[in-house]
Amino acid sequence: MRNLKLLLAYDGTDFSGWQTQPGAPTIQGTLASAIGRVTGENVLPQGSGRTDAGVHALGQVATFATESPIPAANLVNALNDVLPAAIRVLDAAEAPPEFHARKSARAKTYHYRMYRRVVCPPFLARYVWHYPYPLDEDKMQEVAALIVGEHDFTSFAAVDAERGRAQEGADVGQNAEQNAGQDVGQDLGQNVRRILFSAWERRADELVYTIRGTGFLHHMVRNLVGTFLLVGKGTIKPADLPRILEARSRSAAGATAPASGLYLVNVEY
Amino acid sequence: MRNLKLLLAYDGTDFSGWQTQPGAPTIQGTLASAIGRVTGENVLPQGSGRTDAGVHALGQVATFATESPIPAANLVNALNDVLPAAIRVLDAAEAPPEFHARKSARAKTYHYRMYRRVVCPPFLARYVWHYPYPLDEDKMQEVAALIVGEHDFTSFAAVDAERGRAQEGADVGQNAEQNAGQDVGQDLGQNVRRILFSAWERRADELVYTIRGTGFLHHMVRNLVGTFLLVGKGTIKPADLPRILEARSRSAAGATAPASGLYLVNVEY
Repeated sequence: MRNLKLLLAYDGTDFSGWQTQPGAPTIQGTLASAIGRVTGENVLPQGSGRTDAGVHALGQVATFATESPIPAANLVNALNDVLPAAIRVLDAAEAPPEFHARKSARAKTYHYRMYRRVVCPPFLARYVWHYPYPLDEDKMQEVAALIVGEHDFTSFAAVDAERGRAQEGADVGQNAEQNAGQDVGQDLGQNVRRILFSAWERRADELVYTIRGTGFLHHMVRNLVGTFLLVGKGTIKPADLPRILEARSRSAAGATAPASGLYLVNVEY
Repeated sequence: MRNLKLLLAYDGTDFSGWQTQPGAPTIQGTLASAIGRVTGENVLPQGSGRTDAGVHALGQVATFATESPIPAANLVNALNDVLPAAIRVLDAAEAPPEFHARKSARAKTYHYRMYRRVVCPPFLARYVWHYPYPLDEDKMQEVAALIVGEHDFTSFAAVDAERGRAQEGADVGQNAEQNAGQDVGQDLGQNVRRILFSAWERRADELVYTIRGTGFLHHMVRNLVGTFLLVGKGTIKPADLPRILEARSRSAAGATAPASGLYLVNVEY
């Protein structure tokens, strides 16, 4: 049995997120169908983590087991031929048997794109959050830097009844056990995550947030962006961040930013 | 009665073209609804010409008559608030009573974007024609230059039963009479058009065609691109172009290139 690793990019706009669900178009389900058409096998590829409805990927990683003799290099074209144009396989490679897209992940990077001009070009509407109102970008930079390091991010985790206590890790694991396996540091508490990089950057008409960390809770990046926005608007101050973290309560932080601006950029192993 | 002129950009992917039609989402129909919501008036805005299903615009111009007292400057935000994000009003201004978006047009510019790498990023799929196969770009440049000037473009006009003889001018007028009014030169024959600029340009991973002319027949730009592609592939030579023009027959030219790569860039008055 071969263990194949795919590098994927997708426009998440028209999908109900990564994870398969009945009666809804998902990235995982669409990819499974494509693999089925190419290999004749019925397999469910495992992603490095879930992405929510409308969230995009520049470098999602997925693995699947196959008996197919198709060379990995040929698989790129074969899968792209049957996938919709909104999902592209960028690379395919053999992986060691023990390699697992989610459990072997050591860090992930996300971007969040905010478009700042008054009128958002129609060609960007699916790919950014259009926010044309005044923001103190220096203050947003200041607060973003405060989350680098290890923190309990409960205040930034989706309160997700369906997933019970395991509101965490929806994009990196389906429950606390899996999630612990995903994180680099096994010593971290349930909602504690280690952030390695967190900064905003001006790119022409966009304000782009980059965050790199060893693990993320469900909705964590979008909830951070929504909270940084409150700082940019002057509703709260950077100095309020420690209090928000300490509250360990979703209601202490800002609203969830729209999915359209979020990109899973890459996964490190 | 005021005569208002709108500058529009749109992502044509999810629309059945410019012109209103029952039971299908169109740019004109969606814009008419938005104007109705903002002014309370029932008006049909007139565009500089039709664009087909899937064709985009960076600078479409439309006019409509209104009794509304809303200042033109306020209309931009008011319309964008009720329009879908795929259609944006970039500018609104008072126009002289005799100004007509189509009849007053003196020239138009289109772009056609071809994406050349093997894998097309999912975020570009709606906005280019993905053509990754080998092409002789110098030869495509050579043949593109040959259409500058006045030519009978019957071989590049859609054979469009619905529009009868007036297959021409579908993007600049609905019949020959209107179309004659649109062209700068009243002395041009029915399918004769004057092309002022025609060239390909490399822009990173894209090959972009720009054409500027005083009038265009229905499907003309896409049929030219499809024919230039045959030259790029070596199926025909640049020297075959005069023969194709002289044939005055659609079957003499190449296939119609996909709508996704075509943009109405601007209209000159």
